[in-house]
Amino acid sequence: MPFAVIAEAYTLGNIPNEVAMKNSVGKVETKFYNYNGKITLSSGREFGPVQIAYETYGTLNDAKDNAILILHALTGDAHSAGYHSENDKKAGWWDEMIGPDKAFDTNKYFVISSNVFGGCSGTTGPSSVNPETGKRYGLSFPVITIEDTVTVQKLLIDYFGIKKLIVAGGSMGGMQAMSWAASYPEYVTKTIVIASSASSNAQSIAFNAVGRNAIFSDTNFNNGDYYDGDYPERGLSVARMIGHITYLCQESMHKKFGRRLQNKEKLTFDFGIDFQVESYLQHQGLSFVERFDANSYIYITKAVDYFDLEEQYGSLEKAFEKSNSSFLIISFSSDWLYPTHQSKEITQALVKAKKDVSFCEIKSPCGHDAFLLEFDTQTNIIKSFLKKDS
Amino acid sequence: MPFAVIAEAYTLGNIPNEVAMKNSVGKVETKFYNYNGKITLSSGREFGPVQIAYETYGTLNDAKDNAILILHALTGDAHSAGYHSENDKKAGWWDEMIGPDKAFDTNKYFVISSNVFGGCSGTTGPSSVNPETGKRYGLSFPVITIEDTVTVQKLLIDYFGIKKLIVAGGSMGGMQAMSWAASYPEYVTKTIVIASSASSNAQSIAFNAVGRNAIFSDTNFNNGDYYDGDYPERGLSVARMIGHITYLCQESMHKKFGRRLQNKEKLTFDFGIDFQVESYLQHQGLSFVERFDANSYIYITKAVDYFDLEEQYGSLEKAFEKSNSSFLIISFSSDWLYPTHQSKEITQALVKAKKDVSFCEIKSPCGHDAFLLEFDTQTNIIKSFLKKDS
Repeated sequence: MPFAVIAEAYTLGNIPNEVAMKNSVGKVETKFYNYNGKITLSSGREFGPVQIAYETYGTLNDAKDNAILILHALTGDAHSAGYHSENDKKAGWWDEMIGPDKAFDTNKYFVISSNVFGGCSGTTGPSSVNPETGKRYGLSFPVITIEDTVTVQKLLIDYFGIKKLIVAGGSMGGMQAMSWAASYPEYVTKTIVIASSASSNAQSIAFNAVGRNAIFSDTNFNNGDYYDGDYPERGLSVARMIGHITYLCQESMHKKFGRRLQNKEKLTFDFGIDFQVESYLQHQGLSFVERFDANSYIYITKAVDYFDLEEQYGSLEKAFEKSNSSFLIISFSSDWLYPTHQSKEITQALVKAKKDVSFCEIKSPCGHDAFLLEFDTQTNIIKSFLKKDS
Repeated sequence: MPFAVIAEAYTLGNIPNEVAMKNSVGKVETKFYNYNGKITLSSGREFGPVQIAYETYGTLNDAKDNAILILHALTGDAHSAGYHSENDKKAGWWDEMIGPDKAFDTNKYFVISSNVFGGCSGTTGPSSVNPETGKRYGLSFPVITIEDTVTVQKLLIDYFGIKKLIVAGGSMGGMQAMSWAASYPEYVTKTIVIASSASSNAQSIAFNAVGRNAIFSDTNFNNGDYYDGDYPERGLSVARMIGHITYLCQESMHKKFGRRLQNKEKLTFDFGIDFQVESYLQHQGLSFVERFDANSYIYITKAVDYFDLEEQYGSLEKAFEKSNSSFLIISFSSDWLYPTHQSKEITQALVKAKKDVSFCEIKSPCGHDAFLLEFDTQTNIIKSFLKKDS
């Protein structure tokens, strides 16, 4: 399956800009940690063994207290910075934020980034082979939560012998960061939550549910057992298109594409692609199915829908009660997937819980995607947050 | 096919509330006008014959100058008011607005409402039989525009011998109303445009395009030739779910459903329905496929995407230049599919074109659906607009 080939989607055959390479963490590789025990999931089920794909940048100090765990969003992977080879055209997904003198400064910090549990880029997920049956899990993989993802990340942190760490992530990565602060209050010293929410609202559940429905509706889906047959690429592609509408705001989408036609002067009165925005979505859909597993999409969106710190702890305030972390909460003005008011709710709960919290709404026209685009402002804010008391 | 049975979807076997029946236009029936000539479409193609399904309420006066043409939205039909039988549980889709002493007062006006061209509720569309081949059109039906729909409605107006009329509609109905005012300036005396836009923005094109993609992705779609086989109900259902997300606003959706679970106390860690919002969307999807043709959905959403008065006339101002109509433009504060700023653009163009125009934004939490829900405020505004100079 194409999605099993880690990071090849980024290998486009050109030599990267040498300057960019020099300003980055350079050549990196994805490593794997195998935990052969069992973990207990939120559902009560036991699960194991687990493989975790991860990358590290910078050096862990002797006190082992300079680690930052970077947590990726819905479809990210462990490759958050640097290049896998000299021929890589594209760097890791948050390369502008991670590296020497960057927001997450690898001269100072030991940055760890891993693929989420349930994913399809090296960490155990539904496309992995179940050692008990010799077959891929498919839908026999357990339904997991954001907390389970954190449980798996904790195995990696234990493997490094780290007892104090900073956690940071955008979107679903922000959910993991909050879950870390709530689940392991004695570990987390600083928590950075960007463009995220303490629970999905009804509309974001709705978008995820329709995406899953599109996948279930693809006859190739075959109840998740498609690894030896045709891939449910049409359903997954529709799901991804829906996602991409929610990542841009209405205004930025209209500014970016307007009603401009794609490679034609006039409307052609057929059902081919007329508008640039249609071409953009089709491209996003098609390129996504090259790199992502449909089952992983189902499992991870479900984990996002299930995430609800208030439900889990009784209140948001209680979720953070025991935390020793300071918090930085960042939202973007045009993000309508996880709008600013949801970041304010987190902030207010933290204030009530008497935690050290900074909140910042960044004015941006980029919608939810802003956490992957607005580097300068994020860098300034994160740098000053990390400098405090350290 | 189920969608070919007009209005049966509304016949639920219960005797309607007698008071509601009395307050309505009462028992009505859908009639059909058959035009045996040819019309020229926006694409340049000739098309005919055309059947038009319509209903009328009230009486056409001798001067034939008391007609109101009601224009329906994406998936509406000719049955906008009254009941088809004593056993109908549900009245026409805008019954609260059309009837004795209602916004569109049938004591005074002759109200006409017809199914759109390309539809599947009695007017010729892709599910109709092509008389030249004896087979259903399917994708051999021509790609049509909002203007073509208006061309077809004009045949019906001519059949009645009407030369002056009021046009009114919400959403895609508002587009038709504007197109009427622009195309037949000598006919239209008053134009009511509710929750609409003079052109679809990139995001609304995107939602429609993804909906069409979901239908195209259904293997049963079979290039539009599914009438003798399995119905592409999964694809159409996903398309409808996407639509319904855009009809409610984020706030109202969260107020209506929140994170409440559907028929369960706890999350069940499977891929069944967990949340009420998922159940709502699934219901909307499944009930829609009972009454609507997938090909009609494709053709009509394309017509909406193509609609652009500015492109057609050079500017919005020019589109209305020759009009003798007065205009009422209504938007809803929480409508994000056709937001208020788009109604303001129409209003500003009309002011520039020195037309008599009233604009009103109704504060409502109901999102785009508000034009089908906020009856009292709409009634007051429309009544006073219709009273002016009449």
